[in-house]
Amino acid sequence: MSSTSGLRPARVLEGFEPIPPVDAAVRARADRRLDVLTKPLGALGRLEPLAAQVFAIQRTLEPTVMRPVAVVFAADHGVADRGVSAYPRAVTGQMVQNFLAGGAAISVLARLEGLELWIVDAGVDGDCGEHPRLINAKVRAGTRDFVAEPAMTAAECREALRRGQAALLRITEGSNTVVLGEMGIGNTASSALLMHRLTGRPLADCVGRGTGLDDTGLERKRATLATASARTQTTDPLELLAEFGGFEIAMLTGAILACAARRMVVLIDGFTVTVAAALAVRFDPAALEYCVFGHCSAENAHRRLLEYMNVTPLLDVAMRLGEGSGAAVAVGVLRASLALFREMATFESAGVSDKGS
Amino acid sequence: MSSTSGLRPARVLEGFEPIPPVDAAVRARADRRLDVLTKPLGALGRLEPLAAQVFAIQRTLEPTVMRPVAVVFAADHGVADRGVSAYPRAVTGQMVQNFLAGGAAISVLARLEGLELWIVDAGVDGDCGEHPRLINAKVRAGTRDFVAEPAMTAAECREALRRGQAALLRITEGSNTVVLGEMGIGNTASSALLMHRLTGRPLADCVGRGTGLDDTGLERKRATLATASARTQTTDPLELLAEFGGFEIAMLTGAILACAARRMVVLIDGFTVTVAAALAVRFDPAALEYCVFGHCSAENAHRRLLEYMNVTPLLDVAMRLGEGSGAAVAVGVLRASLALFREMATFESAGVSDKGS
Repeated sequence: MSSTSGLRPARVLEGFEPIPPVDAAVRARADRRLDVLTKPLGALGRLEPLAAQVFAIQRTLEPTVMRPVAVVFAADHGVADRGVSAYPRAVTGQMVQNFLAGGAAISVLARLEGLELWIVDAGVDGDCGEHPRLINAKVRAGTRDFVAEPAMTAAECREALRRGQAALLRITEGSNTVVLGEMGIGNTASSALLMHRLTGRPLADCVGRGTGLDDTGLERKRATLATASARTQTTDPLELLAEFGGFEIAMLTGAILACAARRMVVLIDGFTVTVAAALAVRFDPAALEYCVFGHCSAENAHRRLLEYMNVTPLLDVAMRLGEGSGAAVAVGVLRASLALFREMATFESAGVSDKGS
Repeated sequence: MSSTSGLRPARVLEGFEPIPPVDAAVRARADRRLDVLTKPLGALGRLEPLAAQVFAIQRTLEPTVMRPVAVVFAADHGVADRGVSAYPRAVTGQMVQNFLAGGAAISVLARLEGLELWIVDAGVDGDCGEHPRLINAKVRAGTRDFVAEPAMTAAECREALRRGQAALLRITEGSNTVVLGEMGIGNTASSALLMHRLTGRPLADCVGRGTGLDDTGLERKRATLATASARTQTTDPLELLAEFGGFEIAMLTGAILACAARRMVVLIDGFTVTVAAALAVRFDPAALEYCVFGHCSAENAHRRLLEYMNVTPLLDVAMRLGEGSGAAVAVGVLRASLALFREMATFESAGVSDKGS
């Protein structure tokens, strides 16, 4: 989690503060503590660097998950009308209601893990109504069809980034951990194109079946994205986001930057949220140290993007649902890691003989 | 989780009841329910077959984790004096005290996950004292050195199997889920030999660094085990267990058979507990359907053994601590899987459009 892995900084975004870097000396102190706990060196595997990372973020020897919040950003996509998803576009708004009614996967997991669940309407095509846990941040009722024209204007894109930032600052007061998720029929198409242009990986490596396209659908998705990609040659992250992004992706990017600036642990969910993390890191490389990658999705492009970013996800259980569901399950692993770090005895305190002694 | 994968049944053990098979029709009903929940087909990945497995074990559409118990079986090994571990033999008994005092990894994880933690002295070389959560089931103060002679007599081996069964029946009253762990300096040596002879895989594929052997130590461990293996050609599981086993491995085998007969969910931890599961399946193939493999250890032989048994672990986070620690972390994933199964809305109840509709 220590490298910005080829994601070169592009520009600091207007209206966003620079993210404070994590202190390597602080992290080294955590590593030393891990080495005297009653276990063979490194025997807690991935849970050890995870604990050290959170220690370095929170700068305390008593790292905790405090008032954790889960946020799902929902938006529609003009390109969805071209048959790039297995589900009809109306599902985005229907799932927002399901989130709020408590019946969606993320609703269940948020209850189980004690996460306060918020839904942000980033650009749903339709009225989501009123609910105490719903934030209306809609920029527009879905993006334009990016095959024909830019998905959003530059002004809309900046506004979405700012609204993502504002939403997070509002709802994470007193919290030190956030789980980020998304919902948007068609958004893996948008994510694939963004990944392709951000990383330079061939488009075919970035396109997957999303919610469950068949072979014909997958072929259509690839062809549609190839056509869209040919419209512009830009590699500027802000321009790419406006050209091919979704409003939920833009708001997630703003949210990640805002949470990192606040020194929160940011639990990244699947493919689409990881694309937003890759964008955030292009805007401010220091953001990466605040991200914990919750799981590796069954959407193949996700594994490739995680590898490109040189990060290791916590879970690898073939989930591919979005909504923040994989990251929500990973909260349990995060809690385990921190509890072990805080509560395990040392060889000395427990009177256990250390290696070779 | 549906195949006994080459582990042919050998004989039913005296004093153990036959394990009731899981009903395929019951499992199919669970699969049908999973397919109408508000998510793309299969989008919860590994969590879906896990929920269906537990449904088939508990035979209810409301599967739960009820009064979960974690049990750590501890024992010493004669072979440990030959330098096959990075730690001195005294650590086994010291760690038992650490478990009971609350400072070990499994102590911390048991508190976090709400597991009732029990320690079974299966054959520790030394007096473990008295404690309300300690069961003295000691057969002998450690095994004999299996390089020179059988680790236990046939009578000791049968007694260990029975005491493992008895311990579990005593402490899991009213529980439907058990996490099994072990502690025993030198026990990956025993496990490696058992795996080698149970699976027919080359010895080199079964031997790893355990708690952290260096290259010289690893070479010594391999040579020691090759010498021991040459003593007998038996492939009978009961004879193998007596020849090369540990008392904790024998009791774990009895414990797995007992819990499966009681239709409990049995969470298997790392390499050594998986070897016990492989033995249990040789005695009664129906045991496999009750086992949930909590994680894949960084001890390489573990991955190979899981593959041989044709089972997929839940977590793969490079833990290699034993004690039941990996399986204890996996309890969170199990709980998530069951909560989703119980509480998610269906497409119909939530008014969400299904695929292609």
